[in-house]
Amino acid sequence: QKQTVGQVIRIAGLLLGFTIFGTVGIRLIEGSSWLNSLYMIVITATTVGYEDPVTLSDNGKIFIIFYLMFGLGIFTYSVSQLGQWIVRQQMSSMLEQR
Amino acid sequence: QKQTVGQVIRIAGLLLGFTIFGTVGIRLIEGSSWLNSLYMIVITATTVGYEDPVTLSDNGKIFIIFYLMFGLGIFTYSVSQLGQWIVRQQMSSMLEQR
Amino acid sequence: QKQTVGQVIRIAGLLLGFTIFGTVGIRLIEGSSWLNSLYMIVITATTVGYEDPVTLSDNGKIFIIFYLMFGLGIFTYSVSQLGQWIVRQQMSSMLEQR
Amino acid sequence: QKQTVGQVIRIAGLLLGFTIFGTVGIRLIEGSSWLNSLYMIVITATTVGYEDPVTLSDNGKIFIIFYLMFGLGIFTYSVSQLGQWIVRQQMSSMLEQR
Ligand SMILES: [K+]
Ligand SMILES: [K+]
Repeated sequence: QKQTVGQVIRIAGLLLGFTIFGTVGIRLIEGSSWLNSLYMIVITATTVGYEDPVTLSDNGKIFIIFYLMFGLGIFTYSVSQLGQWIVRQQMSSMLEQR
Repeated sequence: QKQTVGQVIRIAGLLLGFTIFGTVGIRLIEGSSWLNSLYMIVITATTVGYEDPVTLSDNGKIFIIFYLMFGLGIFTYSVSQLGQWIVRQQMSSMLEQR
Repeated sequence: QKQTVGQVIRIAGLLLGFTIFGTVGIRLIEGSSWLNSLYMIVITATTVGYEDPVTLSDNGKIFIIFYLMFGLGIFTYSVSQLGQWIVRQQMSSMLEQR
Repeated sequence: QKQTVGQVIRIAGLLLGFTIFGTVGIRLIEGSSWLNSLYMIVITATTVGYEDPVTLSDNGKIFIIFYLMFGLGIFTYSVSQLGQWIVRQQMSSMLEQR
């Protein structure tokens, strides 16, 4: 199941859109700065989850619940597809150098 | 290994049941609100794990240990299957639009 | 790649051994209770990572670095294999009931 | 998709390089000790994400955002490949002992 360049671009676009959507959502609900909102979403969607820089209100908690419920599978699948693609590119360019 | 619609529905049901079971369990053991109990379980089962809104008693810790030991594999596998299915649906609908 | 019952038992054994090793390690290094040591290891190996019930000394940090470096891949792979097996068992028993 | 020993070595090298790069980056930006910088990166790249031993400045947050965005897929894919390889080695050596 090698990915084509077109598929990789679409997956990267999906990831980007998902990140922007979450960042704007947190900013609108919690009034946090752009950097803290983006940081919060990256930390959440990657499931790193340090202590949060943005303390969530009840509305923020509900947003995060739906965000994770609907988006985490997409995020995880997309990131692992991209990771697989990057590792394969690196390996094949290493092979070519020989 | 394309999933059929029937399989996707069963996997989604498994996920829902697992989430409800955990939420009710935390609420019974810790007496936390429905929102905080659900939030705690979503944050736990997705492995995001921010600082917990519900401070766990010893019984709560034992519940979470068993919940993760028995359920995390099911949860992770189900979420990745759903994510794969959603990404594929999106990709094929993009292809059809051409 | 269906797993045989023998493989599933060996994977479960690997997981159990890995959990016991970590629990004993944390207890020896930090002097924490059995429950807190086990809870710490389950929270760590599943990558949930709430704020830790055991505050780690430098030796504890070094132990966790090696524990994750060497063990996380084994843990993640084993848990996903078990999850896959459980979901398949449930699905096939659902099919048989029809 | 069995991995060859050469592939396993390259994947391990990729993981090592990625860990060193992150540790040096955090140390340069935050001025934290080598142990705390390494611990921070291991906790982050494995997505365990306890409360961070290094409190991040805005530059640190930006570094972590890019580190996760570009590196997490590589890290996750590499760790799961290594885990798969270790589990298979263990299983086949168990089989040989019979
Ligand atoms: K986490
Ligand atoms: K955390």
